[in-house]
Amino acid sequence: MAVVQFSPAQPVRAPEREDLHLAFRTVRARSLALTRGLSSEDQLVQSMPEVSPTKWHLAHVTWFFETFILKAHAHGYRPFHPGFEHLFNSYYNSVGEMHARPRRGLLSRPSHDEVLDYRAFVDEKMLQLLETAPTHLAPELSRLTILGLNHEEQHQELMMTDIKHVLSCNPLLPAAFEAPAPARSIALEDGWAGYEGGFVMLGHAGDGFAFDNETPRHKVWLRPFSLRTRPVSNRDYLAFIEDGGYDAFDLWLSDGWAVVKSEGWEAPLYWTKRDGEWHEFTLAGLRPLDLDAPVAHVSYYEADAFARWAGARLPSEAELEIALRGEPITGNVLPDVEDGAAMLAPMPRAAEHAGNNLMQAYGDVWEWTASDYAAYPGFAPVAGALGEYNGKFMCNQFVLKGGSCATPHGHVRASYRNFFYPKDRWQFTGLRLAKPY
Amino acid sequence: MAVVQFSPAQPVRAPEREDLHLAFRTVRARSLALTRGLSSEDQLVQSMPEVSPTKWHLAHVTWFFETFILKAHAHGYRPFHPGFEHLFNSYYNSVGEMHARPRRGLLSRPSHDEVLDYRAFVDEKMLQLLETAPTHLAPELSRLTILGLNHEEQHQELMMTDIKHVLSCNPLLPAAFEAPAPARSIALEDGWAGYEGGFVMLGHAGDGFAFDNETPRHKVWLRPFSLRTRPVSNRDYLAFIEDGGYDAFDLWLSDGWAVVKSEGWEAPLYWTKRDGEWHEFTLAGLRPLDLDAPVAHVSYYEADAFARWAGARLPSEAELEIALRGEPITGNVLPDVEDGAAMLAPMPRAAEHAGNNLMQAYGDVWEWTASDYAAYPGFAPVAGALGEYNGKFMCNQFVLKGGSCATPHGHVRASYRNFFYPKDRWQFTGLRLAKPY
Amino acid sequence: MAVVQFSPAQPVRAPEREDLHLAFRTVRARSLALTRGLSSEDQLVQSMPEVSPTKWHLAHVTWFFETFILKAHAHGYRPFHPGFEHLFNSYYNSVGEMHARPRRGLLSRPSHDEVLDYRAFVDEKMLQLLETAPTHLAPELSRLTILGLNHEEQHQELMMTDIKHVLSCNPLLPAAFEAPAPARSIALEDGWAGYEGGFVMLGHAGDGFAFDNETPRHKVWLRPFSLRTRPVSNRDYLAFIEDGGYDAFDLWLSDGWAVVKSEGWEAPLYWTKRDGEWHEFTLAGLRPLDLDAPVAHVSYYEADAFARWAGARLPSEAELEIALRGEPITGNVLPDVEDGAAMLAPMPRAAEHAGNNLMQAYGDVWEWTASDYAAYPGFAPVAGALGEYNGKFMCNQFVLKGGSCATPHGHVRASYRNFFYPKDRWQFTGLRLAKPY
Amino acid sequence: MAVVQFSPAQPVRAPEREDLHLAFRTVRARSLALTRGLSSEDQLVQSMPEVSPTKWHLAHVTWFFETFILKAHAHGYRPFHPGFEHLFNSYYNSVGEMHARPRRGLLSRPSHDEVLDYRAFVDEKMLQLLETAPTHLAPELSRLTILGLNHEEQHQELMMTDIKHVLSCNPLLPAAFEAPAPARSIALEDGWAGYEGGFVMLGHAGDGFAFDNETPRHKVWLRPFSLRTRPVSNRDYLAFIEDGGYDAFDLWLSDGWAVVKSEGWEAPLYWTKRDGEWHEFTLAGLRPLDLDAPVAHVSYYEADAFARWAGARLPSEAELEIALRGEPITGNVLPDVEDGAAMLAPMPRAAEHAGNNLMQAYGDVWEWTASDYAAYPGFAPVAGALGEYNGKFMCNQFVLKGGSCATPHGHVRASYRNFFYPKDRWQFTGLRLAKPY
Repeated sequence: MAVVQFSPAQPVRAPEREDLHLAFRTVRARSLALTRGLSSEDQLVQSMPEVSPTKWHLAHVTWFFETFILKAHAHGYRPFHPGFEHLFNSYYNSVGEMHARPRRGLLSRPSHDEVLDYRAFVDEKMLQLLETAPTHLAPELSRLTILGLNHEEQHQELMMTDIKHVLSCNPLLPAAFEAPAPARSIALEDGWAGYEGGFVMLGHAGDGFAFDNETPRHKVWLRPFSLRTRPVSNRDYLAFIEDGGYDAFDLWLSDGWAVVKSEGWEAPLYWTKRDGEWHEFTLAGLRPLDLDAPVAHVSYYEADAFARWAGARLPSEAELEIALRGEPITGNVLPDVEDGAAMLAPMPRAAEHAGNNLMQAYGDVWEWTASDYAAYPGFAPVAGALGEYNGKFMCNQFVLKGGSCATPHGHVRASYRNFFYPKDRWQFTGLRLAKPY
Repeated sequence: MAVVQFSPAQPVRAPEREDLHLAFRTVRARSLALTRGLSSEDQLVQSMPEVSPTKWHLAHVTWFFETFILKAHAHGYRPFHPGFEHLFNSYYNSVGEMHARPRRGLLSRPSHDEVLDYRAFVDEKMLQLLETAPTHLAPELSRLTILGLNHEEQHQELMMTDIKHVLSCNPLLPAAFEAPAPARSIALEDGWAGYEGGFVMLGHAGDGFAFDNETPRHKVWLRPFSLRTRPVSNRDYLAFIEDGGYDAFDLWLSDGWAVVKSEGWEAPLYWTKRDGEWHEFTLAGLRPLDLDAPVAHVSYYEADAFARWAGARLPSEAELEIALRGEPITGNVLPDVEDGAAMLAPMPRAAEHAGNNLMQAYGDVWEWTASDYAAYPGFAPVAGALGEYNGKFMCNQFVLKGGSCATPHGHVRASYRNFFYPKDRWQFTGLRLAKPY
Repeated sequence: MAVVQFSPAQPVRAPEREDLHLAFRTVRARSLALTRGLSSEDQLVQSMPEVSPTKWHLAHVTWFFETFILKAHAHGYRPFHPGFEHLFNSYYNSVGEMHARPRRGLLSRPSHDEVLDYRAFVDEKMLQLLETAPTHLAPELSRLTILGLNHEEQHQELMMTDIKHVLSCNPLLPAAFEAPAPARSIALEDGWAGYEGGFVMLGHAGDGFAFDNETPRHKVWLRPFSLRTRPVSNRDYLAFIEDGGYDAFDLWLSDGWAVVKSEGWEAPLYWTKRDGEWHEFTLAGLRPLDLDAPVAHVSYYEADAFARWAGARLPSEAELEIALRGEPITGNVLPDVEDGAAMLAPMPRAAEHAGNNLMQAYGDVWEWTASDYAAYPGFAPVAGALGEYNGKFMCNQFVLKGGSCATPHGHVRASYRNFFYPKDRWQFTGLRLAKPY
Repeated sequence: MAVVQFSPAQPVRAPEREDLHLAFRTVRARSLALTRGLSSEDQLVQSMPEVSPTKWHLAHVTWFFETFILKAHAHGYRPFHPGFEHLFNSYYNSVGEMHARPRRGLLSRPSHDEVLDYRAFVDEKMLQLLETAPTHLAPELSRLTILGLNHEEQHQELMMTDIKHVLSCNPLLPAAFEAPAPARSIALEDGWAGYEGGFVMLGHAGDGFAFDNETPRHKVWLRPFSLRTRPVSNRDYLAFIEDGGYDAFDLWLSDGWAVVKSEGWEAPLYWTKRDGEWHEFTLAGLRPLDLDAPVAHVSYYEADAFARWAGARLPSEAELEIALRGEPITGNVLPDVEDGAAMLAPMPRAAEHAGNNLMQAYGDVWEWTASDYAAYPGFAPVAGALGEYNGKFMCNQFVLKGGSCATPHGHVRASYRNFFYPKDRWQFTGLRLAKPY
């Protein structure tokens, strides 16, 4: 999901007007809550091409509502600023020329304050439209609004992972958020959970929201398999490092080994040694490594090498999807917030709850699968600009499942397909081991 | 197959001693026949990092026999030259340090003549060993020899595609080979062949030779599908170009579009316009484009964009494998040669024969599939240096099926998995369209 | 002067205490006046490695006073922040590790407000020290303070040229400053001024301040020469463009031609055509090209090619230095400001005054010379960190003379040696033609 | 001289016809003698963009005679091959499009044999023309022929330095030439020679051949100076290394330090340690470092840093030119050869003779000066393609004086100006220290 998708899978049943209002206000408020500890300067920085400034995220998700809803459906709507279509478009070639991605950090203008004004302006127009739109428009408005909110939620996660990267580049290692209280870790058995396989149906079902890449639902033949009940922990990963994992070429994919050498990788992103002790940079600053937490910020290459070292393998997307269906969708995710409240630093933590078969199935870290991100049989993208790009990324990336500590509450589900390049490390990405039944 | 694989799938039934001798002499002779029109200077040039000089190929395949058979099993064997292990190793990290791949074109020494001496020396020792080895070694020798011959056949194809690239970089556009006679093209209906799908078994079966990546045989559920009876022709592809295919961003994968722009692609590799007419550089020099021949030298990105433009899609590996099983393994491939004879220029040609369902199923061009090159369920690489690298390339590449005009006769089969990066174009790579049944 | 120098040439006569106070307050106030129109976000952006953020400049010049004066001479001085030595050091390897130059734009922390606090803190301590220091320290404090102020003045020019580059990268093309009133251009003859040559003494003389690279004064034999009375104007340069100057390889130095091709140069930096008319981005936004103003933002390569096209040549440093000595040191430079006043946009303008022999000898644009930046015979850098780097840049750069519209009033003199790489264009750099007498 | 110059300074007095014949045959024979130990494969390799294959050199110098003499003046001359103008042109944009420089190593065709045929063909036509040309053409033919021979001599030096680089890239470290007998080193005092300075005339005088960049002769004022009687030896340079010279940033120019770090320089090019002992790759293979020989293959940056470490400086061009005038033009240079004889490996050696003031003033190693390569006052390039490029390289390079062990006998003189980029190391480049008188 280096680039955010957003086509919806299917017509979504229109919710009640009040529910839509509430959802709109909740999601939009969360975006602002996430930035509470960040200065306007923090929100401008772009630390690498893959990262976008916070301010850009705040404006871009607003641009979505303006472009696809207000311009299309609000009678007499006049855009807040004529230049914003160009500046805050991300990749929709059919909408217009975009401002080159690696140059987003140069946009000192519009100021952060102007972007907040932009948000307030669009919020007001949106709520007004939802209030007053004629009935025949309601299903379409509802569909687009829900889509825009899911789109904004995806960017909320990116806002967290991007600002983490930005702050990590500052030698002062600032802590932008308060740390959460320590996890009340539970003493649960670690082990393997077995699954029978056979004919399974994969992909989205039901009438809830889903992106189009989760469809069509289709039949797959699956061999029996087992999954580790816990994700791989920092403790586990440290053992891999100390066993010389980063020096053992025979553990690595060829392309991965080339990156290990060219980038000088010796540990997950954000790990660093101080006075002989491992620390990890977090959104609450530099902290001693929490050995009980799931390992995060590893690339696919590292996940794959770890699995080989451990005598196991990565699960396929189908295996994880089947397993996730059996678990409650709760966990360490990005919460809803009271108006005006600040967010605590999202970070992976030790398990606090058992699940049915798996611990930490949802939340904490996205789990790499061995499945490349490809179209499901019969997949057809939505027509027009909204669907323009959903199939475009189905090459060279791998699927991740289950959501992370930075995934907004309510956003993830078993059929959800996140995807990144195998070298990417700045997301909250970890892994869970698999093996034959 | 930018890097050549070679672990065998399984114990191969030992052939009769005479058969093995014959196979050894036939394959080794073909390598020399392929170089008949090339000077020692031609055989030294490396035109890009992915390309190896012909001389290097000739030595490297010989090094394989020396390292894995003669050093291991020929009593008292003394290597031909102590430096060759280093120079002609390709990527076997567990055997020793390699000479960096992009620097192979710097090796003016050893001379081409020395490499021929090296080949003759190793041939003599090999034939002697096969003659005299104790019976208990026979199965192992047979297994390794057959493996080495399959390895050499893979390099024979690379010798052709690599030297084609080398010569294409010379402004004189030399013709190193004689052209074959024009194809006796047949007037056959073009259309779609339907396949029923259902449960199928994929991967290698039987006791013939196969590489380990073709195993284990495993069950897959397949939906009904159709394949175009002919591969996409130069005529078809030209229509795509003339319809603005290379300018229509919405036809392309995102990563593909980036390459189109950065590389300035406007046609397949080797196509060029002279006086308003399309020509193609071939191993027999520059020639007018043969509109009836299958299009070759297109990347995965181009194949995928063409399929989208044509309202179809690329087949999966499973679909092509099932279809290939139903066809006779004949076609326009690299023939065996009489001793001392020269090879005609391999080039894709118009169909000369109908198959059962498909034309040109084998030979002419490797057909891109939409399937990433990944391990089959339960795949386990062979132990030791020979198996070191088979799984290493299972990332970021796509599977191709069916063999090409440069694939040695007898080398390809339905379960064969060739693989290249989606941007690669210097192989004889084309495509066949698929759609739902 | 891509990197700022600062060793003083010689002991400077200590000024009266009041004069030093006044100079300190004047220079320090100008730095803040220059930033009046810039937001804290503007002041954070780094648009290319050679550019530093305004905030970084403001802190770095302060760091100089803190490090070389307060830490060294203010009894019991405690640094404002322990991390600033690292963050705001520029290149003084003997002082400590520096924050990598291209990463200065990542420093959202310390905030702009903190940097202003840092400035106020150091200002207070400096004024206190100057007030109270024992008499025996006065000459040393005076020497270092004057050096620090000259250093800050150099950065004031860079603040202007750097922010111009930053704002030019914003598609909104913001105007950060008010434009000055149009020049009251005078109708003066253009022509050539002749100079006799012979033995001349070059380099700094007298007891005013100078940098060490202006010394030692030394004898040179000079042939008679002529200089154009005006610098090359935008009108002149436009004729060069319209005559195909950027396409005529025979006008260019070989290295210059390579840059023209690789960068796609077709006009000076900041020139752009709108609706068929040439415009120039300025610190007051995009404006129609002022044909009477001196051309600015050309590289050495462009200056050299223009001179060749014009049948003339660039002057040597010695020639320009001799000519500058005969002119009054006035012109279009960066003025002193009243407390709290904002600065008008510095920009080259049409000539408003005749000089003795030359117009616009000082100010408007730095004039490229054909002389490489090298040590004067007998040159010896100042010892220690302060002198550490003066000789370090004497390679691959060319000397420029005369100051520009962004050079602070009082900062330039005939012996002043500015220097940049021949490809650099973001300074206010222009040229004046020379020919034999 | 990364790119070879060749405009002559002035009309050269026409030599007798027999002398011209002899000179032609002598120079042309030397080119072939230099390649005696090299295979056609050796002669094809290009190991970096700055290096040209031997075969290319052999053809390019021949192309010069064909293009500028035979095509222009031999009635009815038909070019040997129509494609060669394109392939063997080097940089003369006014003659025609060139084959991109870094791709010269791809030219397996024309073969080495064809290039020898090309040479023989042009030699025959040239000798015939010189024999039969009408008298009025004699001065022009003589001028152009002498120019062409000087051009070929420049390439003879490059053939040696380029093939040395090529062979050094081969892990087998082949010795292409026989080593010369050890030097009969003489026990001479090392010390400083003083020169008075004053008014001196620089540049070429007299009626011998010179390149245009050696003119016009012009007056310069020079301060008294001293030069070290010997060039810096390997022993001297080793002391610099062992004293940590490559780790002491304060010894280095800023641009030089950047290269030291990015390239990982720790010693001169071609130095390598084997079993704890320093060795040097030579044209006679790898040999223990000769401590008495002048250090070679150092960049300007290294020469400058060494001089600073030694408490001295590099001489200016003027200083070295004045000093060279006082020395006999003899030394360790590339000799003339008997027909068919092979050349011994050129390599710097210990001094065998005292000079007047300096030892090894000519030959052994080119000596870096602190002078940038710039036009002499009043310099005007020759008109047309022959003079096209002489001024083009007067930027970013430094002058070297005195010739090397690979400079053909008779080619060098006091006014000769060689020039390379400060980072270049693959020539036989060394240094001699200077200081004030």
